[in-house]
Amino acid sequence: MKCRIKIHLDGRTETVHCESGAVLLEVLYQNGYNIYGPCGGRGSCGKCLVKIIGAQSDSKLRLACRTEVTGDLELELIPQQELKILAEDRGQDFRVDPYIKLETIYLAPPQIDDQRDYLSRINSMLGTRTAVPSALRSLSALEQQTDLSVVTAGDKIIDICSAKTPPPAYGIAVDIGTTTLVMYLIDLVSGEEVGVYACANPQSRFGGDVITRIDHAINQPHGTAKLADALVNALNTGISQLCDQHSLTREQIYHAVLVGNTVMLHTLLGVNPGSIAHAPYVPFFTDALELAAKDLNLAMNPDGIVELLPAVSSYVGADIIADLLVTDFNCDGWKLLVDIGTNGEIVLGNKDQIFACSAAAGPAFEGARIAFGMSGMPGAVASYRITNQNQIEYETIGGREPVGICGSGLVDIIAALYTNGWLTPTGAFENREELVEYREQPAYQIIPNYDIFLTQRDVREYQLAAGAVAAGIRILIQESGIELADVDRVYLAGGFGNYINPESAAALGLIPKELLARVEKIGNGAGAGAKRWLLDRSAKAEALELKRRIKYIELSARADFQEYFTDAMFFPDY
Amino acid sequence: MKCRIKIHLDGRTETVHCESGAVLLEVLYQNGYNIYGPCGGRGSCGKCLVKIIGAQSDSKLRLACRTEVTGDLELELIPQQELKILAEDRGQDFRVDPYIKLETIYLAPPQIDDQRDYLSRINSMLGTRTAVPSALRSLSALEQQTDLSVVTAGDKIIDICSAKTPPPAYGIAVDIGTTTLVMYLIDLVSGEEVGVYACANPQSRFGGDVITRIDHAINQPHGTAKLADALVNALNTGISQLCDQHSLTREQIYHAVLVGNTVMLHTLLGVNPGSIAHAPYVPFFTDALELAAKDLNLAMNPDGIVELLPAVSSYVGADIIADLLVTDFNCDGWKLLVDIGTNGEIVLGNKDQIFACSAAAGPAFEGARIAFGMSGMPGAVASYRITNQNQIEYETIGGREPVGICGSGLVDIIAALYTNGWLTPTGAFENREELVEYREQPAYQIIPNYDIFLTQRDVREYQLAAGAVAAGIRILIQESGIELADVDRVYLAGGFGNYINPESAAALGLIPKELLARVEKIGNGAGAGAKRWLLDRSAKAEALELKRRIKYIELSARADFQEYFTDAMFFPDY
Ligand code: FES
Ligand code: FES
Repeated sequence: MKCRIKIHLDGRTETVHCESGAVLLEVLYQNGYNIYGPCGGRGSCGKCLVKIIGAQSDSKLRLACRTEVTGDLELELIPQQELKILAEDRGQDFRVDPYIKLETIYLAPPQIDDQRDYLSRINSMLGTRTAVPSALRSLSALEQQTDLSVVTAGDKIIDICSAKTPPPAYGIAVDIGTTTLVMYLIDLVSGEEVGVYACANPQSRFGGDVITRIDHAINQPHGTAKLADALVNALNTGISQLCDQHSLTREQIYHAVLVGNTVMLHTLLGVNPGSIAHAPYVPFFTDALELAAKDLNLAMNPDGIVELLPAVSSYVGADIIADLLVTDFNCDGWKLLVDIGTNGEIVLGNKDQIFACSAAAGPAFEGARIAFGMSGMPGAVASYRITNQNQIEYETIGGREPVGICGSGLVDIIAALYTNGWLTPTGAFENREELVEYREQPAYQIIPNYDIFLTQRDVREYQLAAGAVAAGIRILIQESGIELADVDRVYLAGGFGNYINPESAAALGLIPKELLARVEKIGNGAGAGAKRWLLDRSAKAEALELKRRIKYIELSARADFQEYFTDAMFFPDY
Repeated sequence: MKCRIKIHLDGRTETVHCESGAVLLEVLYQNGYNIYGPCGGRGSCGKCLVKIIGAQSDSKLRLACRTEVTGDLELELIPQQELKILAEDRGQDFRVDPYIKLETIYLAPPQIDDQRDYLSRINSMLGTRTAVPSALRSLSALEQQTDLSVVTAGDKIIDICSAKTPPPAYGIAVDIGTTTLVMYLIDLVSGEEVGVYACANPQSRFGGDVITRIDHAINQPHGTAKLADALVNALNTGISQLCDQHSLTREQIYHAVLVGNTVMLHTLLGVNPGSIAHAPYVPFFTDALELAAKDLNLAMNPDGIVELLPAVSSYVGADIIADLLVTDFNCDGWKLLVDIGTNGEIVLGNKDQIFACSAAAGPAFEGARIAFGMSGMPGAVASYRITNQNQIEYETIGGREPVGICGSGLVDIIAALYTNGWLTPTGAFENREELVEYREQPAYQIIPNYDIFLTQRDVREYQLAAGAVAAGIRILIQESGIELADVDRVYLAGGFGNYINPESAAALGLIPKELLARVEKIGNGAGAGAKRWLLDRSAKAEALELKRRIKYIELSARADFQEYFTDAMFFPDY
């Protein structure tokens, strides 16, 4: 039997069909709906909520992965746009000297005493050395014209048109995060950012974090290929939306620059990331790659260039190199960069030496394994404090009614509880009568009249996550032979780093209290670094030089890590 | 109405269908039969002969381009293999140090104290710098293996397999002649030539020489694209036949090296060659090009490399550079190279200077505009002499009954007539009673009892063709400031050069009599040069250096050319 599903999203309504007995989440995926479900449909993350509406329903939220479609349905989805995706950065201005250049030349008609071929003439004017066949084809179709617009990628000519109708030349900078994907459309001539597209990473359906994705790649038939297809399709959707919005053709996108962690870039190319998951944690590639658009089936100019930024190691990816491209590790003084997600990547260095490590923070900061944890979706409590008058103040994403707790909310709540005497320095709840019980755990109701609780186990999850990051920072400080006080800036990068309240993080020891005044948030540093690479060709040499200089410290190989880690799990005095 | 055409070729029979009223030649082309028709179906070359057989027919030869199909037909085609295509060369051994290399490495399992990624390890062993995505994909699928076979193209890794099943690595060297196409299959590991494929250039249907092809490109809708498609399809047919014969897959062809005159290489890439046809004769490109197999839709390994040899100018093409790669213009002493087809390309040089020019010989040497001229097809008279006993001795291609005269036969016949007193030094027939009349011209019946004649106009056509070449040689000798006697070797290249009788050519002044003893035939030098490029990477630098050193002399810009030309039209004393 066929069932009809009527879907409301964003004010628009679509009807799709499926066989009776199908799993609702699968049906939505097959129809292109990108539902966030980090447990991969196992029913354990509680994130794939949809609202079933209509006459015969009670308008309740249901897990799409646990809903069997047995008849016609009507449902409402949470709009993508309300996903809190960090697309902003510090809005730095970058030098505009891109790899892809649009040049206008006057090509004097050839004479019998100078029979050099047209390509040689152009090469000698532009300093280029070769051309792709399609550019030569276009050139031959323009024979009579003397004013030409030439698009170059380094020493290669990739397009030629009449200067009367020069093509706009655009590039896209892409940050492929584990949970979200952000694309910036950049005018390569003016250097301006003209559009942004953001969506959930469609690989989420195969697993919420890099480890479950690697699992999928290893254990499912064509697992890696499916991960690759999901990403490439999402990129192509993004490109076509950006092109539509700005009246561009895909041929006018000449350059794509991609950053992401090492697992993301492996799966993007269809390279099985299996070896990243187990010791000695060796990836298949970390170097910067320059590819043809055709190699990746990207729906841009087929002679366009696709570049992947270099990574440092399996767990310090190209996204971190991108972060470094928009900070000042090339200047005097020691800098600390912390990018916390499922892994906490930590970089400490100055213009002479750089150390990096990755601390396995686990998914707590992204909402998984926390009783009421959720990612940055509407209704997530994102900031929280208890005032001196013992009043509770909080904010939710989208200003909606609170439904759960996201990473920055988690840190705020635990810091508030600790600084108000609800928690001991070891992270145990004090024996207060206001505590309730939730799933056999002592629990704290974070907002009166809402059934949202923070349990003792949640606090432990936080301690494990934060302890790993804090221990990583300690080890890098030790490795570099400096004191904490020598660090003159702390950059917080990534979504979590951007939304976190530094005071709360310092109160709990997640970042060293001594450095609180030196904290600077850089927003989506990975995306900003990709933009810089797109616009400023010197970024490439700088990135390669950074990669060379970075000494990667494998925490799992350090005998002292466990000690620092146990230490760092306790909250500092306040 | 549908008509059935039963086609016999090579012992096989196929039946095709067409609409009544279709032109037979078109029907044959559409069904993949590659009929030689240099006038492009205009009915003027007389070459597209097919034999109509069966009950209601008189088994006569007919021009396929002038035959309308009005009912069922049965016909016999002349087998491709009997086309006299020059695929042999001097069989030189080349240094085997190819661009594409197959390397076997042992990749030690990574350790925690050396977490470099796999690609970096391989790069540091092989001196490579990057890899294509599909090679990384293959590598990731081989994770557990330590013995690897790696295919490299310069500093790029293009394939990776288990060393237990190393891939054969093959390349093809292709000589794209205006009338014929020859492909050599080469084992890139051993350096051995393992197969040859030859066929008529399928562009012939659009015109017999480069000028009519350019015409087609300029004046017909999608003219250039059709020329490109015809070539690419023929190349792909050749590749698949060679692969089938040698039990290879297309993925095992990693490299294709292509030579041809400038018009051929333009049309191969779909670049309109229009500008080559008119002053100042400037082509769109002459540099060597390195392309991806994908750029050209060649049915080889999609990550394989396609290279085009560099050319000198519009009329001294990559085929001539290839000729030079297998001769010794880098050594002491002056060398002369002559490659005669529709154009006579002439190169004169030593290790310090090289001069080149192209003389518009016209199509006489290829059989066009000669009353009984034909290309090197079965039945063509290819050698001819009149003995001291006044006996006629001749040979035909394939040993068949004589039906016409090909280029080398033409030179022999005219030389025999001149040295036996039938022709004056100005090329006029002596007033002999044995002469007959053919198409209102004095004519000589070349073989008793066969209706094959050489007319006065044919002699004039020869004189124009040979005079242009001889004048070109004279001008280069003058330009270089040497004497004829200083030339210590004369290389004859190309099909015509290979089959021509040097004594006859010298008797008529086509090549200088003084140099007769220094003549060496190099066979298909263009193909041999392509093979060398495939096998010996140093050929590339040598070719680029040759291109730099060659000074191209534009004969049409020379005031003295007409004088030399008129001079050279007369036969020398004997
Ligand atoms: S609970 Fe449905 S996807 Fe996780
Ligand atoms: S006469 Fe038929 S193709 Fe020339």
